[in-house]
Amino acid sequence: MRLLFALNLILVYSYGMTKSISDKVINRLTLYHCILSDYISSNIEFISSKQIANLLHIDDSQVRKDINLLNNSGKGRVGYIVKELKQSIEKTLGFKITKKAFIVGAGNLGSALAKYDNFTSYGLNILALFDSDKNKIGKSVNGKIIFDISKLPNLAEKSGVDIVILTVPREFAQETANFLVKSNIKYIWNFTPTVLSVPDEVQVWNENLMGNFLQFSYNMQN
Amino acid sequence: MRLLFALNLILVYSYGMTKSISDKVINRLTLYHCILSDYISSNIEFISSKQIANLLHIDDSQVRKDINLLNNSGKGRVGYIVKELKQSIEKTLGFKITKKAFIVGAGNLGSALAKYDNFTSYGLNILALFDSDKNKIGKSVNGKIIFDISKLPNLAEKSGVDIVILTVPREFAQETANFLVKSNIKYIWNFTPTVLSVPDEVQVWNENLMGNFLQFSYNMQN
Repeated sequence: MRLLFALNLILVYSYGMTKSISDKVINRLTLYHCILSDYISSNIEFISSKQIANLLHIDDSQVRKDINLLNNSGKGRVGYIVKELKQSIEKTLGFKITKKAFIVGAGNLGSALAKYDNFTSYGLNILALFDSDKNKIGKSVNGKIIFDISKLPNLAEKSGVDIVILTVPREFAQETANFLVKSNIKYIWNFTPTVLSVPDEVQVWNENLMGNFLQFSYNMQN
Repeated sequence: MRLLFALNLILVYSYGMTKSISDKVINRLTLYHCILSDYISSNIEFISSKQIANLLHIDDSQVRKDINLLNNSGKGRVGYIVKELKQSIEKTLGFKITKKAFIVGAGNLGSALAKYDNFTSYGLNILALFDSDKNKIGKSVNGKIIFDISKLPNLAEKSGVDIVILTVPREFAQETANFLVKSNIKYIWNFTPTVLSVPDEVQVWNENLMGNFLQFSYNMQN
């Protein structure tokens, strides 16, 4: 956490920016990163802003503007050097600083996220899952053990985890959040379709899937 | 689709807006809608902008500004009338216009989304799932049948579906997208961590989970 903070500051100071990179730019940079990973798999050395822009159906001036925010020097005559651009994005967004998290709720969504290997390569290390269902406890998903929820406070403290990915059914969301707050969890990535009530010192990130879909469908014909 | 378009126009004309509601506002409105649903379950009649703002840890002036975009008349002395505000949001965002979709990939994530009952109440009707795994075909998730992927073009045409929620493993994402394009699917809600290459007439909405997490963690200490 401290390292991440320091990284932000370095970015702010070294580029003379008055504010950190916006959410929209971060989102686009991770999509560029996906594309660059695919290029590396295909052994392609160079990529142009136009190629990235075409894949995302956005303007290439936008791509160049975003890339200019990075400390990226790998621009060749035929485009950006794929490997260097990828590393620049990783450095800027702090992929290398591993964040440890638990998944609470070992249903379909929790299991899907536990299997989402992409998380690891982006610095999100899911250590374990938690559930209250006796039939699930002791089993594992993608090599991660499902523990009884009552074990969470102790394991969080021991392993220094303060991030929880919350994937319990809607009706248990608030009571689980209360339990997480008591267990000193500081960040909740909330996949439940509920707005959680938590104290100010706890941050909730709402993964508002329905909101995302509505943005999508609202813009369908625009 | 046409209705949705018409709705946008009505909104634009009746409020003299030059552009439609932004993605950020749509996202917040759906979160307000979640809160209002919870209030209705608890039989609470009125809600203030301050109460909404506190739950979301945002400024109440922002909440009032967003609500002013709606054609909402239900403002009482003690706050907004919960039921009317909820309906105003539904009307504005077009929840009542049902959009039909298929899920392609009946793994954990596809199954989780098929079980996400919240979708239905927001006008997203998932008709069926598709997979190529013979062990899954014929089974059902939350009352929705899993069909052989080869049946998709025919079923899409018959039921007028042009939206697909894509949840296949990363390595099959592009070839599946190619198949969907050939099957006249026009909108792909992409949950795979891949940037898909599709023709201009097909819209891809990237559910960039990792990007969302990085925005979250990037802002952790800000």
